[in-house]
Amino acid sequence: MRRGVDLSLYYLTDTELSSGLGLIETALAAVQGGATIVQLRDPQAKAGWLVAQGRALVAALRPLGIPVIINDRPDVALAAGADGAHVGQGDLPPEAAREILGPDAIVGLSITRPDQLAEAPWGLVDHLGVGPVVSRGVKTDGAEPMGFDGLRACVLLSRRPVVAIGGMSVEWVPDAMAAGVAGIAAVAAIAGAEDPADAASALRTAIEHHRRLRGAARG
Amino acid sequence: MRRGVDLSLYYLTDTELSSGLGLIETALAAVQGGATIVQLRDPQAKAGWLVAQGRALVAALRPLGIPVIINDRPDVALAAGADGAHVGQGDLPPEAAREILGPDAIVGLSITRPDQLAEAPWGLVDHLGVGPVVSRGVKTDGAEPMGFDGLRACVLLSRRPVVAIGGMSVEWVPDAMAAGVAGIAAVAAIAGAEDPADAASALRTAIEHHRRLRGAARG
Repeated sequence: MRRGVDLSLYYLTDTELSSGLGLIETALAAVQGGATIVQLRDPQAKAGWLVAQGRALVAALRPLGIPVIINDRPDVALAAGADGAHVGQGDLPPEAAREILGPDAIVGLSITRPDQLAEAPWGLVDHLGVGPVVSRGVKTDGAEPMGFDGLRACVLLSRRPVVAIGGMSVEWVPDAMAAGVAGIAAVAAIAGAEDPADAASALRTAIEHHRRLRGAARG
Repeated sequence: MRRGVDLSLYYLTDTELSSGLGLIETALAAVQGGATIVQLRDPQAKAGWLVAQGRALVAALRPLGIPVIINDRPDVALAAGADGAHVGQGDLPPEAAREILGPDAIVGLSITRPDQLAEAPWGLVDHLGVGPVVSRGVKTDGAEPMGFDGLRACVLLSRRPVVAIGGMSVEWVPDAMAAGVAGIAAVAAIAGAEDPADAASALRTAIEHHRRLRGAARG
């Protein structure tokens, strides 16, 4: 478990969408635009390639204070010296991820339906990725979108910060933030944009705008 | 590293080929026929499924003294309580597998060309899987077959026992054994057979027959 991780804008890499600018360069652009945490995700890739990309991401992003998370594979996270791993339903259990990565790593867990929260191992996970919210996004084999009502239900049931994922774009930021999430995850909205840094900046601006509005309404 | 592992007949599971009898049942049949070690291999499967199958294999085979190895994923091996992991070129480095699994686990390494032996981390791996020898077998994306001359070259360069893999069937056992291998790996020759126990028995008989012949020639 790691305290103080900023989940505001969680960028997940997409090898194909970032093939023009490059995977590492696109991640750097996302961070320059305001992404606060980066996940290496490529379900098709071999572990050796993931380790190499993971190491390159760590080399590029650790000096900037940005954590690097590896999707699905704690073994790759360990080999790459990454900050943690993210596991989903059907992936390695969070218990195994925590055992491999140790107490200081960041372990995230995907939740695709509110009922999965009943059995979540709260003592082992740092945060939840909840979705798909609006659409399946790049995860073509994913679950049915749960909408913002589903997202709100998950936030209420969660004992850990929640990141909203699945079709997230600037237009949906107010609804997601209003549901009480700690941050927004983006793949195509950043990697698929003409200018990934600009796209990340627009998302981050919308997130911070909503926070100020909410702060003002409370204050 | 683990001493005394019998590599004579190394069965690798194939989910599709064993779908009739069942993955666990086919592995048990292979062992009843004479397989001495079993690897769970399914590059398409999700980690959660692999953990479940790995645990079932361990439950079935540990009482029989048969080690269970997980292909490619040391994290799954740890979660399943398996005896070790097997990594290939392009997979997680053997160093990482050893770090995750500890000094007592079995770590195997795939070699597809003799030149890869120049950099093999001998202190970290228990044995090598060398191939493809005759054909690519079930590994449709594999390297070019190296033939028995290539196999012999690898055996001569190796500081660890070698298992021959790739198109191995009863007819090729004499050539493989003559190349100096410690054992034969089989997938389709067992899982694709009408009777997997019979097929494993025929392979094991051919292996032991060759050993007796060689012993008689020496004695």
